[in-house]
Amino acid sequence: MSSQLCPLPAEKTESCVLRACSSALPCLAPPGRRSAACPGLRSLTGMAEGRFYLSVLALSSLGSMCVLFTVYWMWSWHGGFAWDGSILTFNCHPVLMVAGLVVVYSAASLVYRLPQSWVGPKLPWKIAHASLHLLAFILTVLGLVAVFRYHNHQHIANLYSLHSWLGITTVFFFACQWLLGFTVFLLPWASLWLRSLLKPVHVFFGASILALAMASVISGINEKLFFSLKNATRPYSSLPGEAVFANGTGMLVVAFGLLVLYVLQASSWKRPEVGITTEGQPLLRERE
Amino acid sequence: MSSQLCPLPAEKTESCVLRACSSALPCLAPPGRRSAACPGLRSLTGMAEGRFYLSVLALSSLGSMCVLFTVYWMWSWHGGFAWDGSILTFNCHPVLMVAGLVVVYSAASLVYRLPQSWVGPKLPWKIAHASLHLLAFILTVLGLVAVFRYHNHQHIANLYSLHSWLGITTVFFFACQWLLGFTVFLLPWASLWLRSLLKPVHVFFGASILALAMASVISGINEKLFFSLKNATRPYSSLPGEAVFANGTGMLVVAFGLLVLYVLQASSWKRPEVGITTEGQPLLRERE
Repeated sequence: MSSQLCPLPAEKTESCVLRACSSALPCLAPPGRRSAACPGLRSLTGMAEGRFYLSVLALSSLGSMCVLFTVYWMWSWHGGFAWDGSILTFNCHPVLMVAGLVVVYSAASLVYRLPQSWVGPKLPWKIAHASLHLLAFILTVLGLVAVFRYHNHQHIANLYSLHSWLGITTVFFFACQWLLGFTVFLLPWASLWLRSLLKPVHVFFGASILALAMASVISGINEKLFFSLKNATRPYSSLPGEAVFANGTGMLVVAFGLLVLYVLQASSWKRPEVGITTEGQPLLRERE
Repeated sequence: MSSQLCPLPAEKTESCVLRACSSALPCLAPPGRRSAACPGLRSLTGMAEGRFYLSVLALSSLGSMCVLFTVYWMWSWHGGFAWDGSILTFNCHPVLMVAGLVVVYSAASLVYRLPQSWVGPKLPWKIAHASLHLLAFILTVLGLVAVFRYHNHQHIANLYSLHSWLGITTVFFFACQWLLGFTVFLLPWASLWLRSLLKPVHVFFGASILALAMASVISGINEKLFFSLKNATRPYSSLPGEAVFANGTGMLVVAFGLLVLYVLQASSWKRPEVGITTEGQPLLRERE
């Protein structure tokens, strides 16, 4: 669209600023002087912030519900949690995967969408992004340990279902993504050229891993229900309470994931890229 | 990045053109005069086209393999196809869903990435986009009819598993998406304002429906294998030939879907938006 072509230096007219803001092109003025240099920017940023915080509220509620519903499912219908290799150890698996690979992973991915991260140095937000993703990865690995521990104690084969093949592939991608992000975007030795080259790949795989996590969770809940309701008085096909509740939890995970993916790609909530220097801020060259 | 801020009128320097091309910002010159007005654009477009056609080759091969592997799975391990309400009717379901909701749907979504669609009137490409999506939708509905027909003939409950809940939601979103696209972007009565407002939503839901289709296919293959290998001499957990083959087919669908999503979001393969007039071309106002 033509608004994308507006060069927007600080002396441009208000209509140009408004068009550029609506298409999320950044103002060339330094962040601290933007609202003065670009008339109209403050009110539009305020509107974008308002909508963003409404989404944060919806996402926090949905994300908490995803985890709490999974806990409630495992607690009420499957006897709760333990770490002794029994079926109660398995019960930690869905909770840790939904919490780690979906909810905390999403929170980590959304760090750069916080309006506070739009101005000033990028480094603290990079550290927050990497740390939250590390927490998500630790929860995910604990979730894998839970299911392997249960299988090994009960002499059940590991990694045979399509759910497990997709799940382990997702975790492998997540590990590669975290290592790539840490090495290229946080440590100081990668060139700006390499960072610019890899950033779109990093962003694409960030969203893709969340989509794969959603698919893994859906197939996992489906599989668990076929197992647990196999010999029940009311089978899965008669939709007993557990089936409705767990199906609903799966659909909630899908709604949460889609909302996260929408916020991630909505251009008006992206941190404006004001220059290649800010873009490529490494860890050890930073003076802060 | 600073390259995003290049205003790029036709009289700008070559380095500006190159930076803008690499970030996929369009040249302001009319499409027919672009390579003359913007030095360097032709060779870069050629490189982008080369990579695009390589991806088309990979996608065509992967997409065909997804459908052929699903046909082979149903043919070799489940006795082939029929439309008589028997289990052979069910066998049409995975084939039609993979073909319609994943492969033809993806082909329809990628129409605007063909370099031929970048220049000249948009209308023929809109019609191709809508027609291919209609074909995808017809195959999808036939896939649904197959499973409902089988269930009804065999007195099996419909729509109880999470796979079915997600699948039917995906098809519902697909129907809404097609109707919205037809009404707003093809018929003449929607205003340019409404088109501009809804285009990001249409694009986001286009990619989301493919992600949901992938999740539905994964959970569907997983569910089918648990059913069909329940009483087999070699159960699913011992990974017999069918399990390896069908798991592999599921992973192929995931690889195909991720590659399609990558091509869809790669900015260098998007049709340049040269003006709001081209953007909003309706069906009945077109002079062609």
